[in-house]
Amino acid sequence: MSWTLEVRGLRGASWIHGGSGVMDMLLERGARLSAHGRRAFVVTDANVARLWGRHILEKLGVCSGGERMRAVAAGELSKSVAEVEECWDWLTQVGARRDDVLVGLGGGVVGDLAGFVAATYLRGMELWQVPTSLLAQVDSSVGGKNGVNLAAGKNLAGTFYQPDVVLADPLLLDTLPNLEFRNGLGEVVKYGLLEGDDLFFLLESRAEAIRGREPAVMAEIVEWCVGYKARVVEADEMDRGERATLNLGHTTGHALERALGFGVMGHGFAVALGLLVALAASEEVLGTDPSLRRRTRALLEALGLLVSLPLPPLDGLLSAMSKDKKATGKGLGFVGIQALGRPVRDLDLTTPVLERALRVIGS
Amino acid sequence: MSWTLEVRGLRGASWIHGGSGVMDMLLERGARLSAHGRRAFVVTDANVARLWGRHILEKLGVCSGGERMRAVAAGELSKSVAEVEECWDWLTQVGARRDDVLVGLGGGVVGDLAGFVAATYLRGMELWQVPTSLLAQVDSSVGGKNGVNLAAGKNLAGTFYQPDVVLADPLLLDTLPNLEFRNGLGEVVKYGLLEGDDLFFLLESRAEAIRGREPAVMAEIVEWCVGYKARVVEADEMDRGERATLNLGHTTGHALERALGFGVMGHGFAVALGLLVALAASEEVLGTDPSLRRRTRALLEALGLLVSLPLPPLDGLLSAMSKDKKATGKGLGFVGIQALGRPVRDLDLTTPVLERALRVIGS
Repeated sequence: MSWTLEVRGLRGASWIHGGSGVMDMLLERGARLSAHGRRAFVVTDANVARLWGRHILEKLGVCSGGERMRAVAAGELSKSVAEVEECWDWLTQVGARRDDVLVGLGGGVVGDLAGFVAATYLRGMELWQVPTSLLAQVDSSVGGKNGVNLAAGKNLAGTFYQPDVVLADPLLLDTLPNLEFRNGLGEVVKYGLLEGDDLFFLLESRAEAIRGREPAVMAEIVEWCVGYKARVVEADEMDRGERATLNLGHTTGHALERALGFGVMGHGFAVALGLLVALAASEEVLGTDPSLRRRTRALLEALGLLVSLPLPPLDGLLSAMSKDKKATGKGLGFVGIQALGRPVRDLDLTTPVLERALRVIGS
Repeated sequence: MSWTLEVRGLRGASWIHGGSGVMDMLLERGARLSAHGRRAFVVTDANVARLWGRHILEKLGVCSGGERMRAVAAGELSKSVAEVEECWDWLTQVGARRDDVLVGLGGGVVGDLAGFVAATYLRGMELWQVPTSLLAQVDSSVGGKNGVNLAAGKNLAGTFYQPDVVLADPLLLDTLPNLEFRNGLGEVVKYGLLEGDDLFFLLESRAEAIRGREPAVMAEIVEWCVGYKARVVEADEMDRGERATLNLGHTTGHALERALGFGVMGHGFAVALGLLVALAASEEVLGTDPSLRRRTRALLEALGLLVSLPLPPLDGLLSAMSKDKKATGKGLGFVGIQALGRPVRDLDLTTPVLERALRVIGS
């Protein structure tokens, strides 16, 4: 079962294809490129290169990977300005032109790096994303945000640049380490809360199958998440309003990542905890039914995610929230949720409300 | 006499204001920002900071320039990745947010740097351009192209990012060194050829007044050039077709800059020579009347521009042309001109034609 979604962006359409075997679309696309004298260049990381590198190059019709694939070190440190420069230099050395294609093959880090490089090399090349992690398939490969970390924080540099094509193939998830798979489920539960009954019930009722990575249920879940995100991105590509709802759980999530030191806790795990904080705060200021937080907590546990942790000092978390990229002159950009499927943007929360909400995830 | 033009881009509208005194619009705009808790940050260079820095900060209502203005070294070397990183770090240190404004105050180098930083800091801040050179007022501040130089070449990294506001004030041209002013006239003559009779005749008939920088004639010329560019950019913001006509003279111009070593000859001087090469090639393949090249040569001379030079080796120039950013699988991206106001894109030129055309600027 495969599916196709179109995201109509300002720069043109993104085509998103999902389902087992959609990787094979690279065969025809690679051949079409060659027929026009164009070439595809692949950015990936060392782990993914080992597992899938040769496979993908073969599909693209490339024999010698040497100059057509660049494998960066796996991990967040590769989202650096230094690595961006190395990629630019690589592309100039191999003579990449503005009508060539950059393929991002990997998880969120590779997708962000490849997206930024494609957006900025010669003012923009065509970009294809082949996400290999669950987090990238359900979230980061769609929507066109890319980013590079600076000394002062994560993703402080970046652009909006829609991929031309996204191929989300569940076969690629087979090789994902268990921790990394569960990490992706944090964003999946976020989409369950945003989308509403249909996806949330699916997650509750199929939690076991999901943890077993059954391809049919995974393809269905990815389609739900991407479908939701695509609609929001179409309505507000440049993140001036409605798109902010996608940050549900992220004000707290980012603050936790920052307070614990980036990389200590996976982004999806931090977002999952942030969802519980958002629900607790929403109970106070939006009158959200507390049963939704109980159900969400049970779902997170069923999916193998954290629902509490020894809390870092609250003043550190609050200060990290105020430094978040989302913060503006108007406030923190905190997203609440009134009921399943009903997010509320720009909640105005007092410090005492925030502190009480944070305490619900303290163990 | 002041004028206003709107460029409708993919991301929204750019407002371009020209004429003596339009700088004063910063007063009202600065006050409006402050009223909303937003701030303006200024990127400039050391020369412009000395001449105009305090003046502009005062208009923006900023008392202490220290953290609100960054003056880079004057010259092309500041269009570096290292300088971009310094700007990002400065913005994070002073706590700039995504709803703040970056003002580019300077010539083409500052405009390109400020544009790239504004496009990429927190995925995009509001951008105002206050061009202080003729070249920037007639050309580079409009249209949204920015760029950073890499070791392998000029402008190899960059994005498309329209400024929200451009203020082109002829008063700023008063402090421009003579060489720099004439440099801008190279692009002006290009617009004369592209626009056609009206602007070309104006340039021919008012060459003396132009060299004397008479404010009324300068304001009129800048309006013609910007008006032409705005129409082309609206039709093809991402440079996929029609916008390429703006590269008239640039395939040769860039090759000359590269062969002589960047910075040896001003961009506008190189483009002026490139116009004569484009006209000579067009005579061969488009049947362009040779009188147009004679008139253009006379106009360039009247405006104090070069019309010939001791030619670098032709094979070096030809190889530099094939490495140009504009080159694709399809060709050099060479722009010809059939008659005044009638540019022709993607001319297919044989090497002998190119060589003969290049020889017309050999002294």
